[in-house]
Amino acid sequence: MEAEYLEGKHALTEALAAHTPLHKIYVSGQVAADKRCAPLLDQARQQGIDIERVSKHELDARSVRGAHQGIVAEMAPYEYAGLPDLVQAAVGAENALIIATDHVTDAGNFGAIARSAEAVGACGLLIPNKRNAQINAAAYKTSAGAVAHLPIAREANLVRSLESLKKEGFWIVGASEKAPQNVWEASLSGRIVLVVGSEGEGLSRLCEETCDLLVSLPQVGKIASLNVAQATTAIAYEWMRQCNAT
Amino acid sequence: MEAEYLEGKHALTEALAAHTPLHKIYVSGQVAADKRCAPLLDQARQQGIDIERVSKHELDARSVRGAHQGIVAEMAPYEYAGLPDLVQAAVGAENALIIATDHVTDAGNFGAIARSAEAVGACGLLIPNKRNAQINAAAYKTSAGAVAHLPIAREANLVRSLESLKKEGFWIVGASEKAPQNVWEASLSGRIVLVVGSEGEGLSRLCEETCDLLVSLPQVGKIASLNVAQATTAIAYEWMRQCNAT
Repeated sequence: MEAEYLEGKHALTEALAAHTPLHKIYVSGQVAADKRCAPLLDQARQQGIDIERVSKHELDARSVRGAHQGIVAEMAPYEYAGLPDLVQAAVGAENALIIATDHVTDAGNFGAIARSAEAVGACGLLIPNKRNAQINAAAYKTSAGAVAHLPIAREANLVRSLESLKKEGFWIVGASEKAPQNVWEASLSGRIVLVVGSEGEGLSRLCEETCDLLVSLPQVGKIASLNVAQATTAIAYEWMRQCNAT
Repeated sequence: MEAEYLEGKHALTEALAAHTPLHKIYVSGQVAADKRCAPLLDQARQQGIDIERVSKHELDARSVRGAHQGIVAEMAPYEYAGLPDLVQAAVGAENALIIATDHVTDAGNFGAIARSAEAVGACGLLIPNKRNAQINAAAYKTSAGAVAHLPIAREANLVRSLESLKKEGFWIVGASEKAPQNVWEASLSGRIVLVVGSEGEGLSRLCEETCDLLVSLPQVGKIASLNVAQATTAIAYEWMRQCNAT
């Protein structure tokens, strides 16, 4: 996996606030001597991040966007979990939730889903390795750092992964506007994988066919559909409510 | 209220997609003659928006950001509702929901709240006229146009407005992480105003004291708090569930 580089003071400020794991920070001599940058660099040192003074030439070489302002931070590669890690996180639990995103590409939506998953105590996320938001600096920011506290498995074949989780005793629940049963009528408690679809398309046909159950969120308004992150949050909380009620 | 001007093709494309009410579109001769711009202008005409060809000089004069690319659109001022309109929207309804935002400034969060409010059939929103996202082009975009389908009252004094709604038979429910009772234990069905606080501070002290009831959303994760829009959505759906269950 290629390293991700963050450029400029603003990006670094946001990354530190979200406790994004940074491997190293490269600064120019000018930035190293700039008193206004001192608090930012102190904060980085407190998080145990190595700071190296390099030439402007070297910063330019590491800069993709050409907007480094004398600072480039190298993000430590995110260590994805494997499916067995998600299963392990649920061992012995009567109730367990894995949220699988079937090609949720918007970083803001993906981050919000991760944040909600962490809040309800999900044991992890499952994402496809293509056409889905990945765990990068944007995901740290939009999830307010929640991605650091959740095992996230990234698999090439989402359908095959769902089948594996079925064998581990998970019930696969897909969110679909067209589902005849709503989340309140459905029995959600127990060990489930909640599968949510992409912003534009919803669940892919193969994913939908793999689900044991499809559920909808009632909607009475005129707008076509809820935002995927909002819908995921509402369903995740309904899972939590039902688990607490039984 | 001052008119809001949108500049450039990208902003106009997004505004038309969200059915943002535009008063007029001003274009340069070059844009009017540009075949690549024809579909965009046709779409605007289909939405009944007047298009006027003006000089580059005039476009420059209307441009705030100086990035008009030959197109400036004037947004029709949003017509805020009054408190009586919100009450009127709830007349005769056994269950009714108004969502009040106590200084939610982030446009993305505010838009998501409006979108969820519309989805659960809320009868309107109540916002303060300062330090809160207002109904501008950003709100149309982030709410996917939901703000057009909801009466939104904007008041100078939120606490006084809540007191008025109490007299109209609404129960004022504040969302607070510190509340001893969670949303599942609380009785939410009926006619309620759900008050949610700002991203950083939560509910203001005066607002909190005005509430008849404070409720929390259970959270088991390590992150300090759910995003305000996610929390609002989860509580709004719990209101809807309880209304449907009784």
